[in-house]
Amino acid sequence: MQLVIGNKNYSSWSMRPWVLMQQAGIPFEEVLVRFDAFTPDSAFKQRPAGLTPAGRVPVLIDDGFTVWDTLAIAEYLAERFPEKRLWPADAKARARARSVCAEMHSGFGALRSHFPMNIEARLPEIGAKVMAEQAGVRADLDRIVAMWSELLREHGGPMLFGDFSIADAYFAPVVMRLATYAPPVPEAISAYMARVQALPGIAAWVKDALAEQDFLDFEEPYRKHR
Amino acid sequence: MQLVIGNKNYSSWSMRPWVLMQQAGIPFEEVLVRFDAFTPDSAFKQRPAGLTPAGRVPVLIDDGFTVWDTLAIAEYLAERFPEKRLWPADAKARARARSVCAEMHSGFGALRSHFPMNIEARLPEIGAKVMAEQAGVRADLDRIVAMWSELLREHGGPMLFGDFSIADAYFAPVVMRLATYAPPVPEAISAYMARVQALPGIAAWVKDALAEQDFLDFEEPYRKHR
Ligand SMILES: N[C@@H](CCC(=O)N[C@@H](CS)C(=O)NCC(=O)O)C(=O)O
Ligand SMILES: N[C@@H](CCC(=O)N[C@@H](CS)C(=O)NCC(=O)O)C(=O)O
Repeated sequence: MQLVIGNKNYSSWSMRPWVLMQQAGIPFEEVLVRFDAFTPDSAFKQRPAGLTPAGRVPVLIDDGFTVWDTLAIAEYLAERFPEKRLWPADAKARARARSVCAEMHSGFGALRSHFPMNIEARLPEIGAKVMAEQAGVRADLDRIVAMWSELLREHGGPMLFGDFSIADAYFAPVVMRLATYAPPVPEAISAYMARVQALPGIAAWVKDALAEQDFLDFEEPYRKHR
Repeated sequence: MQLVIGNKNYSSWSMRPWVLMQQAGIPFEEVLVRFDAFTPDSAFKQRPAGLTPAGRVPVLIDDGFTVWDTLAIAEYLAERFPEKRLWPADAKARARARSVCAEMHSGFGALRSHFPMNIEARLPEIGAKVMAEQAGVRADLDRIVAMWSELLREHGGPMLFGDFSIADAYFAPVVMRLATYAPPVPEAISAYMARVQALPGIAAWVKDALAEQDFLDFEEPYRKHR
């Protein structure tokens, strides 16, 4: 199985299935396509566009068969490796996990655009400024805090649904954004963030992201250089 | 089981699970909450916001348990009613169906904003103008045409994956938009659109939408009145 991804420092969507497979112990070969640009003639667009009609990463290739989009990849892996229990085993918990992952998949636009993932950067001053100026980001963060708090309370931790699941992989890039921009969060949330970052599958991605040392202008609204 | 939805003429997300359940013969009670506005103090926001933390429709309520977001609702129904075969039975076809539904779930932004669903309206002149001016809409439409053409060819029709599935319910609002704005599409696509509109589950929604006769300014970028 191959997983086609973008830059590890920046590609939040790529991070999700990569850390899921890594943490669950599903063997795969990584194919990293650097984000040179998202224009039709960019090397990035030539490469994944040749693989899938949607032209985005991540893409999973299983024996020549391509699956695109993080949610479809997660469902495919959950069906293909039932023994890994990638979704919560309980039907209601599973439905709830799917609701919050779907909410992430099409929502949190303000958080995503004002707090782009940039694992190596530490930008707490930018974080404070954005939080002061952007009501949309405050609303998104409030929703994240309420969601995680409720799930951790209900399932007793350490992860959102007890054991590690697709939901934690799905919110891992949000954990990385909060680490970079450092808005204030309750104690229970920073403790969850620390536990996520300590998972071997997440730590492995972060280590690679830090080693990358690439700088892409169009992913950097806040920094002039590294 | 209850399904909470918005206005039938306008609410493309509500349409998806409603036509899915209707067409598959899954009994449910409809709870329609009129879109008065999407502001925090609107009646619409008070109602679904009390039901789910995401504050959007559709919401499925199964014996007091809420499932929100169309994709999570579709997966929940597929698990709860396996005999209805809501996803394609073949594993690869199912993965492909999930890829295209996920692509719809987070994509096609230009098509969605320039061609908002408005079932009762017939706006071919607006459609022609938008097609001439908006490269993003042309790209989205090209992708839809390529996707549907390939799936119809590969699975032999009449629906995208042979028999009716979640994928057809997922693209039904796109069929309605293309009927309203009438951009030129190949023969095979208009034939598929006609077959979708002839499905009893879709026809039932359209009939209710036409009877609604509501006019909401914020859903009407193109009309001054009905
Ligand atoms: N809904 C998709 C989103 C994937 C996505 O937007 N990926 C970005 C990289 S993080 C990409 O490929 N962007 C290229 C582009 O938008 O042209 C998923 O969940 O996989
Ligand atoms: N990703 C959601 C989208 C739901 C959605 O945006 N619904 C609209 C009505 S069609 C809504 O409730 N809008 C209210 C708002 O955005 O405040 C889904 O698939 O269910």
